[in-house]
Amino acid sequence: MGLDTDIDRIPAHLLDEEDPLFAFNKAIVDATLPYAVAYKPNTAFYEACGAKGWTSLQKTIAYIGHRAFVIADAKRGDIGNTSHQYARAIFDHLGADAITLSPYMGSDTVMPFLEYKDKWAVVLALTSNKSASELEIPDDLYLKVIRLFNQLGTPENTMYVVGATQIDYIQKIRTAAPDHFFLVPGVGAQGGDLQEVVRFGINKDVGLLINSSRSIIYASGDKDYATAAGESARQIASVMSSLLTTYA
Amino acid sequence: MGLDTDIDRIPAHLLDEEDPLFAFNKAIVDATLPYAVAYKPNTAFYEACGAKGWTSLQKTIAYIGHRAFVIADAKRGDIGNTSHQYARAIFDHLGADAITLSPYMGSDTVMPFLEYKDKWAVVLALTSNKSASELEIPDDLYLKVIRLFNQLGTPENTMYVVGATQIDYIQKIRTAAPDHFFLVPGVGAQGGDLQEVVRFGINKDVGLLINSSRSIIYASGDKDYATAAGESARQIASVMSSLLTTYA
Repeated sequence: MGLDTDIDRIPAHLLDEEDPLFAFNKAIVDATLPYAVAYKPNTAFYEACGAKGWTSLQKTIAYIGHRAFVIADAKRGDIGNTSHQYARAIFDHLGADAITLSPYMGSDTVMPFLEYKDKWAVVLALTSNKSASELEIPDDLYLKVIRLFNQLGTPENTMYVVGATQIDYIQKIRTAAPDHFFLVPGVGAQGGDLQEVVRFGINKDVGLLINSSRSIIYASGDKDYATAAGESARQIASVMSSLLTTYA
Repeated sequence: MGLDTDIDRIPAHLLDEEDPLFAFNKAIVDATLPYAVAYKPNTAFYEACGAKGWTSLQKTIAYIGHRAFVIADAKRGDIGNTSHQYARAIFDHLGADAITLSPYMGSDTVMPFLEYKDKWAVVLALTSNKSASELEIPDDLYLKVIRLFNQLGTPENTMYVVGATQIDYIQKIRTAAPDHFFLVPGVGAQGGDLQEVVRFGINKDVGLLINSSRSIIYASGDKDYATAAGESARQIASVMSSLLTTYA
């Protein structure tokens, strides 16, 4: 469940609340918890509201608590000295279980996160956006990333981001990382095909965390937004269940 | 001037202040403003203090105001929809003039920032850290990045990060981007050689923004930290002046 909660897209009546982002997220979590194994707030939407947004994010993660896995979709990446600070921000301060990381600068960007026990680094491999073809695909950069971080982490502390729009490559990526979990964004608003993702991406542990955000949280823009989100999440979970019956 | 202000490294007496990070930065800015053309706070150090840190950063940038150029060293990079949110966070909310960006995901990650008038995108090309050799250098990824963003931006809205530790490559990078400014971290604590950077990196407009952070802001860990930082900044500025006389 992606929590890309945009202050400009949440139902207007929530703007009267003291903390509109948190009010929205709380209702969405209440409605979708039966169908979600993980929540993935994208930090950008909270930062866009400044310090107040940061507090909304912290409250959201605290509210989810231990009821679901939380991935801070922050796509951070910096030198080791600085990565330690990001690890403090995301793991200690926000309390997330996992963080997405950009691999461009190499292993420095990931190692400080792997030092945390029971926390996860989710490394961008092949992303769902169109311009992934510009740098990630030429010279198999995405495979180099996977080979590099396969050596540094384990399937128990490292996952890879593999976009649902990248069907042509999922099989190759699964061969390169047979045991790792993939975080798969791009189903729904971005047009990725769930069935094809499961067909080519599944492994012995399932190995897929499929993310959907906008198609669930904005299922209705009105006062029934939480009910509509719950229904949308239920439908996706039901499709996933039947795909597991077919492919697992 | 890098403002990598670490709550664990600032002088102990500042911890009694209501906003220790801001108190430190304010004194550092006052002492170094005669010698600095730009300030580069790294967002990680502020995020490590949660919402409070975000407020410290906002206050710091407001305090600098129009007296110097401000680069938010955030190394963000996400799909277009999300990049817009980061642009809001960094340009509208924090009020920075520029942001550092990770190019891994391609042009999506940069375009929303270039839509802002009079703001700058500073794209990671070849970074100063050791593990830059793992992905950035093989297959000349750093040059592909430069060629890609040369097409998308102009020398008036795009800069490249080129680490001061990468002396062997600076000439090649200057040839690939003759007119762009380079943001050059890694002088000082990271061991980059200022003279070699200027020698191989200078262009007709100088084209170099040399960053130093830890060697200035932590010049003294005691109550004289601001005076010591001012003196350290003065020394570096003086070396830069003499290098300009030699190479410009």
